[in-house]
Amino acid sequence: MKSNHASPIAASMYSWARDLFPFCRSLTGPGVRMTLRYIQGLLPGFVIHEIPSNTQAFDWSIPDEWVIRDAFVADDSGRRIVDFQKNNLHVVGYSEPVDQWIELDELDKHLYSLPDQPDAIPYVTSYYQRRWGFCLTQNQRNLLRPGQYHAVIDSDLKPGVLNYGELILPGKSKDEILLSTYICHPSMANNELSGPVVTTALAQWLMSYPDRHYTYRIVFVPETIGSIAYLSRHLDHLKRHVMAGFNITCIGDDRCYSYLPSRAGDTLSDRAALHVLKHTDSNFKRYSWLDRGSDERQYCAPGVDLPIATIMRSKYGEYPEYHTSMDDLSVVTPQGLEGGYKAIKRALMAIEQNKVYRVSVTCEPQLGKRNLYPTLNSKIGYYDDARSLMNLISYCDGNNDLLKIADLIAKPIWELKPLVEKLVKHNLLLTI
Amino acid sequence: MKSNHASPIAASMYSWARDLFPFCRSLTGPGVRMTLRYIQGLLPGFVIHEIPSNTQAFDWSIPDEWVIRDAFVADDSGRRIVDFQKNNLHVVGYSEPVDQWIELDELDKHLYSLPDQPDAIPYVTSYYQRRWGFCLTQNQRNLLRPGQYHAVIDSDLKPGVLNYGELILPGKSKDEILLSTYICHPSMANNELSGPVVTTALAQWLMSYPDRHYTYRIVFVPETIGSIAYLSRHLDHLKRHVMAGFNITCIGDDRCYSYLPSRAGDTLSDRAALHVLKHTDSNFKRYSWLDRGSDERQYCAPGVDLPIATIMRSKYGEYPEYHTSMDDLSVVTPQGLEGGYKAIKRALMAIEQNKVYRVSVTCEPQLGKRNLYPTLNSKIGYYDDARSLMNLISYCDGNNDLLKIADLIAKPIWELKPLVEKLVKHNLLLTI
Amino acid sequence: MKSNHASPIAASMYSWARDLFPFCRSLTGPGVRMTLRYIQGLLPGFVIHEIPSNTQAFDWSIPDEWVIRDAFVADDSGRRIVDFQKNNLHVVGYSEPVDQWIELDELDKHLYSLPDQPDAIPYVTSYYQRRWGFCLTQNQRNLLRPGQYHAVIDSDLKPGVLNYGELILPGKSKDEILLSTYICHPSMANNELSGPVVTTALAQWLMSYPDRHYTYRIVFVPETIGSIAYLSRHLDHLKRHVMAGFNITCIGDDRCYSYLPSRAGDTLSDRAALHVLKHTDSNFKRYSWLDRGSDERQYCAPGVDLPIATIMRSKYGEYPEYHTSMDDLSVVTPQGLEGGYKAIKRALMAIEQNKVYRVSVTCEPQLGKRNLYPTLNSKIGYYDDARSLMNLISYCDGNNDLLKIADLIAKPIWELKPLVEKLVKHNLLLTI
Repeated sequence: MKSNHASPIAASMYSWARDLFPFCRSLTGPGVRMTLRYIQGLLPGFVIHEIPSNTQAFDWSIPDEWVIRDAFVADDSGRRIVDFQKNNLHVVGYSEPVDQWIELDELDKHLYSLPDQPDAIPYVTSYYQRRWGFCLTQNQRNLLRPGQYHAVIDSDLKPGVLNYGELILPGKSKDEILLSTYICHPSMANNELSGPVVTTALAQWLMSYPDRHYTYRIVFVPETIGSIAYLSRHLDHLKRHVMAGFNITCIGDDRCYSYLPSRAGDTLSDRAALHVLKHTDSNFKRYSWLDRGSDERQYCAPGVDLPIATIMRSKYGEYPEYHTSMDDLSVVTPQGLEGGYKAIKRALMAIEQNKVYRVSVTCEPQLGKRNLYPTLNSKIGYYDDARSLMNLISYCDGNNDLLKIADLIAKPIWELKPLVEKLVKHNLLLTI
Repeated sequence: MKSNHASPIAASMYSWARDLFPFCRSLTGPGVRMTLRYIQGLLPGFVIHEIPSNTQAFDWSIPDEWVIRDAFVADDSGRRIVDFQKNNLHVVGYSEPVDQWIELDELDKHLYSLPDQPDAIPYVTSYYQRRWGFCLTQNQRNLLRPGQYHAVIDSDLKPGVLNYGELILPGKSKDEILLSTYICHPSMANNELSGPVVTTALAQWLMSYPDRHYTYRIVFVPETIGSIAYLSRHLDHLKRHVMAGFNITCIGDDRCYSYLPSRAGDTLSDRAALHVLKHTDSNFKRYSWLDRGSDERQYCAPGVDLPIATIMRSKYGEYPEYHTSMDDLSVVTPQGLEGGYKAIKRALMAIEQNKVYRVSVTCEPQLGKRNLYPTLNSKIGYYDDARSLMNLISYCDGNNDLLKIADLIAKPIWELKPLVEKLVKHNLLLTI
Repeated sequence: MKSNHASPIAASMYSWARDLFPFCRSLTGPGVRMTLRYIQGLLPGFVIHEIPSNTQAFDWSIPDEWVIRDAFVADDSGRRIVDFQKNNLHVVGYSEPVDQWIELDELDKHLYSLPDQPDAIPYVTSYYQRRWGFCLTQNQRNLLRPGQYHAVIDSDLKPGVLNYGELILPGKSKDEILLSTYICHPSMANNELSGPVVTTALAQWLMSYPDRHYTYRIVFVPETIGSIAYLSRHLDHLKRHVMAGFNITCIGDDRCYSYLPSRAGDTLSDRAALHVLKHTDSNFKRYSWLDRGSDERQYCAPGVDLPIATIMRSKYGEYPEYHTSMDDLSVVTPQGLEGGYKAIKRALMAIEQNKVYRVSVTCEPQLGKRNLYPTLNSKIGYYDDARSLMNLISYCDGNNDLLKIADLIAKPIWELKPLVEKLVKHNLLLTI
């Protein structure tokens, strides 16, 4: 079993993913609420909000709520050939109700499969255009023979609410870090269960983070309409207060690390993400804004322009199992989740630690008299730590922030932390 | 015949070139006037100006007018060995009159040939130093035997006028685009007949261009002294109004495309030229300001600093036939002229279209409800057009102009035009 | 003999190095004073300053003065096994006095050698921690047998003075160029005798430099404590007046050229250094601020930020003889010294010549009428000088300084000098 040797946090994340996997999430409906309530159980202070259908959100309108109870295609013997009870991907998301006997050629217009991935059920939705349909493997589809089929979708599509979750963790500053993840995908693991479970683990860690400088705003929304609705409620506040943040998605497999920039490309979030990934895995994949596809589309839209970047493992659209039934709990691993969790955690710590310092003395301080430098000068020994200390001091000019210095001296910011603390203790560095 | 399959515009340009090829152009004189009158016949509103000799133009003075009627070197039998009637390159441009019998060794001081191109008559001028001379092929020269020769140049060099042509096409704005080409070279085709004929074709096209935003100022001047004189008459106006422009030269062969920057290197003209050439021929040759050699030397001089770049086919000085009798109508082709014409036309259209837009809604607009985006979400189909539409919208932030966006999303600006029009029609883009 | 074919300046520098080599320099003491007095003999106006021990200099304090008269380790037969009289590197710099018979295992704690360079005596100091010790070759050390040894260091360590030398050469401007070198190393040649001797030669040249624009401040200080002390006395003045400068060290071998930037990296000094080295030896080694190790650490410290760069031959720490007895007068050569001298001289001349010019006429000047350009236009001859002249003029726009122009047109600034002078003489260039 993959989680055998996992760390406690990895094991927790993986077990949450296992619990949440079967829920049939969508933009709205019971599956989303069950998911949010599960997370609420893990995060004290977590609030579940609702927005009524038809509420306007910028150019969009909150859609009707979708309730799906059952769906199947049965043959004339009554045998279920495609069965929502076996996999909730079998029904097209937001399918309207149907209950009719039809010929295969008529049914066929409502079927979706992937000829190139004959074992995979594709993930298909039709949120804003009334449709009904079934998704099935190409192999299943190939077995269908002409005849009568019973197509049944037992769903409701009527005014209700759109739900989202929100957790605010106040810090010393009113400046905020925004973490956003989405909870609208049915049973798929990397995209998207990895997002909510890693975000939940990060929220637990942040709750216990001593002396948080920033206030953390952590939201679990349905993708696109959820982030648009959230922005429509909070835009002015967010534009004033959000200093950095990440959209958390596709963060659970262990094949690679990926970075997708904010629209601006050079925000604090981008700098932290690039710094962390450079020192985590030099082969990380660097995407461009043109490769975007998740809620950064809203958070970084013109006029919104929040500093939101994305750290991922295998990016949506770039791995074979993406948006199919094959994106299951074998794609996501405890190690993959833990790697993603650690990378974002490091980025958040980098942002917390990213202060501007100024050396308190003119010229180099005499480190030797403080036992921070060897008193014997020779080429016999070489003192890498003392060298890093000197490099750090030489860049603490009241202008460079610590992330910039870490890049200048080619050390991860987490290795500079103890050096900074030592120098602050000796009153050699002052905070600007 | 090379023009067999040429488009109408290519055929027109090539036929104008054929008509103009025999005229003996120089800085001044009848050949220039005949050329300008020919172009006047093609361009209603075209004005031929004259500036008297000895008029001061900044550091320069308009030279005397040169009239050349005949020139030859004959042997003692009266046989013309070098004959201006056969090729007007045989006389050094601006040669003073001469009529004398001289020995070969004396004659030789007045002869110019190219040992490395023994079949080519070189193009030589001496505008500001009185001289007389003949240009001939090295093969001709090798045949000369000691003896008496009759050197005759039937020319005038006396106060007259310098002529240039000018066409102003008013647009909605007083901001101007400047097109400049030169009409001072005798029978050579790529440098320079290609320049005037492509410029004439562009002027015809601009006359019919609907709703020109810019006013177009199109000038046909002798090189160097002509552009200096033109600037001396219009400098303040040009500095205030010219937003972009091109010097049009060496635009008729079909071997390559070339770009030579303005002195500043990053003007609107440079951006348009680079954008067009990148999407026209990825192997285009990129020269530097140090490689300059035509009227950009004046238009971009310190203190003048007009935004003038150059789009060429094979650049002056860089192809073997340059400045010899071999630069004839076999070097320039209808296809070559048409390619050059299209490239500059595209650059001018790019400049016309280069507006700044702002998306009218906050967050992404809902394109689906406007039938601009598929309503079914799946990985089955891929919608490149919808993707380009989204990319375009994401950069329309009221700061980026369309050329910059086209570069950011790696599409030629002419492919963005229909998308912009669609979005403007749906009130999703506003002009800044 | 290596100096056989050396130029007079190279021979002088090499002979000064030979004279100064045996002196036992340190941070303080008679060796430093002898060295400074020797240089004073070569440089009229050279002033030797002193600062009393225990004077505070920023975070540092001037140490006691060290006087070393003799030092040896003798065996029980009285034979000197390690002998300061043979090489003054044999005693650890700033050793406190000792005179005792000890067993080998006790002595061994006070011995320093280099296992990887068994023939080299290492250079070791302990300025700020009281110690005594001997440096010897690994081969010497291997011969030591158990037994009693007589360790004698006849030194004083008591309040005295720290000395440094200073020469001010006034120029037309109060703006200053700072040259700094150090005089604290005992018998080693590239690091550091090359520094003082090249600096002395540069000072002699500067004395005779006609119409110096800048005032030159030339200091000979012990490294680190000396530059810190000097800065503590002159910081405000230096920050106001120093426009450029160089730390002069490791400038005497002939293996390569090296460049180490200022902390800012783009000062006038950096630009001059890079320009000169690029045109002197395209294989020059380019180091980063992280490779620093000499007095640029003080001159470029945060809050000091003087524009001090370093031009070297083989950089300290990067050649095998560094900080050992093998860095002797066979490492440094007359040719090596001369190359280093010329490179820094060229950088200083570049800074002197680095004015901003503006062409006095609009459009290109007519160079032909001034005999600065050929009057015959043809492709037969090619006029590189005229071309450079035109390129130079085209960039003299009142913004670019001459160093920038030299880089733009890819010519060394010293080749532009005669062209500038010619154009100034013809009133075509004006100084801004």
